[in-house]
Amino acid sequence: MEQPTPTDRTRVKQIPSRGKYDQETIRAIIDEGLVAHVGFADGDQAFVIPMGYGRMDDQIVIHGGQEARIAQVVRRGAPLCITVTLLDGLVLAKSALHHSMNYRSVVVLGTAREILEASEKLEALRCVVEHIIPGRWDETRRPNDAELKATAVFTLPLSEASAKIRTGSAVDAQADLELPYWAGEIPIRTTVLEPIPAETVPSSSPWPAHVRD
Amino acid sequence: MEQPTPTDRTRVKQIPSRGKYDQETIRAIIDEGLVAHVGFADGDQAFVIPMGYGRMDDQIVIHGGQEARIAQVVRRGAPLCITVTLLDGLVLAKSALHHSMNYRSVVVLGTAREILEASEKLEALRCVVEHIIPGRWDETRRPNDAELKATAVFTLPLSEASAKIRTGSAVDAQADLELPYWAGEIPIRTTVLEPIPAETVPSSSPWPAHVRD
Repeated sequence: MEQPTPTDRTRVKQIPSRGKYDQETIRAIIDEGLVAHVGFADGDQAFVIPMGYGRMDDQIVIHGGQEARIAQVVRRGAPLCITVTLLDGLVLAKSALHHSMNYRSVVVLGTAREILEASEKLEALRCVVEHIIPGRWDETRRPNDAELKATAVFTLPLSEASAKIRTGSAVDAQADLELPYWAGEIPIRTTVLEPIPAETVPSSSPWPAHVRD
Repeated sequence: MEQPTPTDRTRVKQIPSRGKYDQETIRAIIDEGLVAHVGFADGDQAFVIPMGYGRMDDQIVIHGGQEARIAQVVRRGAPLCITVTLLDGLVLAKSALHHSMNYRSVVVLGTAREILEASEKLEALRCVVEHIIPGRWDETRRPNDAELKATAVFTLPLSEASAKIRTGSAVDAQADLELPYWAGEIPIRTTVLEPIPAETVPSSSPWPAHVRD
């Protein structure tokens, strides 16, 4: 696996020990996330849009309609910033300004490429569906030619990317440690509730394994 | 409560029925979120950074060190885009390209203002701490003068903002409804686990009410 060097744009500067640049860490965060925040500039105004995504090897995959705004943005050559953030906990400190959060995030910068070839497009969309729930691609109707033509698919390489990770409890100043306030971490988890079948699914149907798990 | 009209930049165009512009909806999403994705442009490259935040009436509050990048960005007058996204569920459809997610998101555009006056700065930071856990401000050491001076605090008005909401189950084409695949919604919730006290908290201490709740 290629291990890119952090660039001046991706190196974590404020608390350098929180920066990670190895592909294993970056991919693990991307694989665990469900929503990416995709940023692009239009003049001096940035726009940040939440989007589903997938990972195809060393690339992030996003998609939309042929006329979607993100399609126009990529086609005019505007670079993207795709950020994926996992919130792991709230950090309560003895002093107000040392409150923090535990999180793992990835920032990917670069210019996206449009996939035009049908079989590569299909493979990229497979990655997006499998990212939502592994095993789903074989349990859904695949895109037909008309749908493929109507869909724009883009990939952004992970070559200019960095992860930032905060873990652990509060970090208070020595002088504050004896203050009588509670301090510590409140872990946060993303959990799923019981699936709700659509009306088109017979109520007697068992859940398929990929949904149940 | 002032109800701003959507601008051409905030109106939801692709599926207009998903767009909401009333302040009640916008504030409720902002109040429920914990992490904002803050976007700004540097030349043609956008950057998207996850940040904690608070809401002070009709403004979002963010903060950082005086030399933090976000401080430099705001001071040079670059407009921001602050996006808050709540993921409510995965939507599995009979066909691959109708998979979706249920979510509530808010996008706020505009130029942030730096708060320089000490008492307003303190009030804004109170909103940030109370946003993490209501009741916390009275259970922590407040910022002293030196800390206040070292902290840069910015507000972005909610005047140019829109919410986007998707709810409900899969929307499949009529021709796909009889396909033998499972379809429906898998609800997603953010939950907290048992708090982990810092080493500086005696193990005999009860949890304060604002942590327990």
